[in-house]
Amino acid sequence: MKVDAVQLTADLIRCPSVTPNEGGALVLLEGHLTAAGFTCARVDRGGISNLFARWGRKGANRSFGFNGHIDVVPVGDRTAWTHDPFGAEVVDGYMYGRGAVDMKSGVAAFVAAAIDFVQTTPPDGAVVLALTGDEEDVAEDGTRALLDWMADTGETMDVCLVGEPTSPEVLGDMMKIGRRGSVTVWFTVVGQQGHAAYPLRALNPMPAIARLMDRLSSHVLDTGTAHFDASSLQVVTIDTGNSATNVIPGQTTATVNVRFNDTHTGAGLVDWMQAEADKVAAEFGVQVSLRSRISGEAFLTPPGALSDMVSRAVQAETGLTPVLSTSGGTSDARFVKSHCPVVEFGLVGKRMHGVDERVEVAQIGQLQAIYARILADYFA
Amino acid sequence: MKVDAVQLTADLIRCPSVTPNEGGALVLLEGHLTAAGFTCARVDRGGISNLFARWGRKGANRSFGFNGHIDVVPVGDRTAWTHDPFGAEVVDGYMYGRGAVDMKSGVAAFVAAAIDFVQTTPPDGAVVLALTGDEEDVAEDGTRALLDWMADTGETMDVCLVGEPTSPEVLGDMMKIGRRGSVTVWFTVVGQQGHAAYPLRALNPMPAIARLMDRLSSHVLDTGTAHFDASSLQVVTIDTGNSATNVIPGQTTATVNVRFNDTHTGAGLVDWMQAEADKVAAEFGVQVSLRSRISGEAFLTPPGALSDMVSRAVQAETGLTPVLSTSGGTSDARFVKSHCPVVEFGLVGKRMHGVDERVEVAQIGQLQAIYARILADYFA
Ligand SMILES: [Zn+2]
Ligand SMILES: [Zn+2]
Repeated sequence: MKVDAVQLTADLIRCPSVTPNEGGALVLLEGHLTAAGFTCARVDRGGISNLFARWGRKGANRSFGFNGHIDVVPVGDRTAWTHDPFGAEVVDGYMYGRGAVDMKSGVAAFVAAAIDFVQTTPPDGAVVLALTGDEEDVAEDGTRALLDWMADTGETMDVCLVGEPTSPEVLGDMMKIGRRGSVTVWFTVVGQQGHAAYPLRALNPMPAIARLMDRLSSHVLDTGTAHFDASSLQVVTIDTGNSATNVIPGQTTATVNVRFNDTHTGAGLVDWMQAEADKVAAEFGVQVSLRSRISGEAFLTPPGALSDMVSRAVQAETGLTPVLSTSGGTSDARFVKSHCPVVEFGLVGKRMHGVDERVEVAQIGQLQAIYARILADYFA
Repeated sequence: MKVDAVQLTADLIRCPSVTPNEGGALVLLEGHLTAAGFTCARVDRGGISNLFARWGRKGANRSFGFNGHIDVVPVGDRTAWTHDPFGAEVVDGYMYGRGAVDMKSGVAAFVAAAIDFVQTTPPDGAVVLALTGDEEDVAEDGTRALLDWMADTGETMDVCLVGEPTSPEVLGDMMKIGRRGSVTVWFTVVGQQGHAAYPLRALNPMPAIARLMDRLSSHVLDTGTAHFDASSLQVVTIDTGNSATNVIPGQTTATVNVRFNDTHTGAGLVDWMQAEADKVAAEFGVQVSLRSRISGEAFLTPPGALSDMVSRAVQAETGLTPVLSTSGGTSDARFVKSHCPVVEFGLVGKRMHGVDERVEVAQIGQLQAIYARILADYFA
């Protein structure tokens, strides 16, 4: 019994699975996978639903893993959409809906490919799916919960493919073999409020924050490495909220986000920013404090067997040799990489998170074919 | 018929004359002044009430002027006050209320002194009062309206005393012979919004604003002049309002206020800031625009006959020689200075604009005595 990937994509889009609601999407997938002989387990933690599925026996000597998410970001401005964001309407060869590219079509394509593969050519090994309901939000209890549960119960993946949209322009032009790390730091500079006419009775925090943000943003972190672009530091906001032009504010805040390559660690960057903050605090006599959050460390699955296998499948189906990239934001691959080698390949991500998110219907079948080739190649 | 300055201060405090409402304060003063033989005229413009009063004939060969305001700033946090801000309650020798020091007591002290003076020792000349209902707010139609009206109707002052609170610690320790200028500049830096993971597709305005604010605030404008403190530039706020740590903002704003001495003009400073903005715009490829408002130019009434006269009166009543200062914020003296030599002397300003604003009752009589001596000296 085959599963149609296009139909499954539509069915998934019609599940309103905005994080943290699974919206029926995992229930739907569990039904298909169970029917096809997969052993399924719901792994729910912290209000998040996740689904583990395995075909083949636990502890098989070869285990191919797939990781994906069924949650989607909110619709945003509903009135700006020209189609129902949960309607899966098809117009001119495109299926519209939140999650159409990120990444319900990717999940549907792999599920369809895997079910077909195990039924037509049952492999000597296991096919494992780790499907999460929280990749888009804090992701504390999503793929992490699945990986924790797998470690506890002895479930394994020898390699893992993440089905995120990775192609910038056309299907097959890029795959991801790693990701940059991301760290966010929130700065607060405290001085002494006062009247602008009496600056000696006040201590303005603004010169300090300007100097600090200038120093941080003009610092060259690196110029890139073999597989990574240069690290990038962005001051994303400075806010004071002082509407009185005759008042020297008492404090101000700023937020910095760094996307960093394998030259750095999150902790090392936080230490550096702390040192710069301390320097400015000493120069200006203000108090500078910071708090930080490391969303992920930089990681790389060096080019090799796994990326070659994906490359071959992409070439066979699209004629393109995907660039091996580490660009872009973070994904759950940052969690998987501690478990096994991981690469990412999926559709064109252009429309993700946007209004009128849509997927070219023909590409769902192409993606399914690529995933099928990868499975066949892996177990060959 | 004498007017009691303490009673008049209390009566004025009980008039809720928060700008732009005169709250009965000018009506009250007009009554007293008319009864004492002053010719009064209400000079109302743009929704603001002002009062002109003259004792003696128009075009007298000597005319002593007094300028003051009866409007007050809002109460602020009413619950923080321990006394009715419009109650004029006297506790332990202090009278409480909004405007107690800024500057209803100053107006009351001069009105009482002037009425007593013209009645007991009628001078050969004129005593003129220009009392405004808007010094605290935009001041477009306050003292300016009075001066315009005076020019139109041929009313003159040969010298002018402004009764603002000028003493920082004890009554008599300081008078003002000028004021620094003030200019405010609002900057907007526009780049291109984007995702923090794709900095090359965006143009972050934050490095430019940080660099610009660092340059402006670290520039030494001057080191002070004979009668002025060093000019002071304060970055009063930077605001971006971007709460998404993964988004590079499209634009940001900053506000700068400069209190400047007679080394500078408002226009010269705006030109300099425009040039610095242009430099940063070129360095970072962003757009930097600015708008500006010059609240007042720096001005000085050089030490001489007028300041000596005030000094003598202060010394005789308090034993102190007032420092001749140009410090502090702006006052309506910045308008009067185009009309005639102007100096400012009044009470201790510490509590002005604050919660529980209050005046030491005994100082109202002292101030009245000082003003009386100045009048006597001037017409001697
Ligand atoms: Zn995604
Ligand atoms: Zn005042």
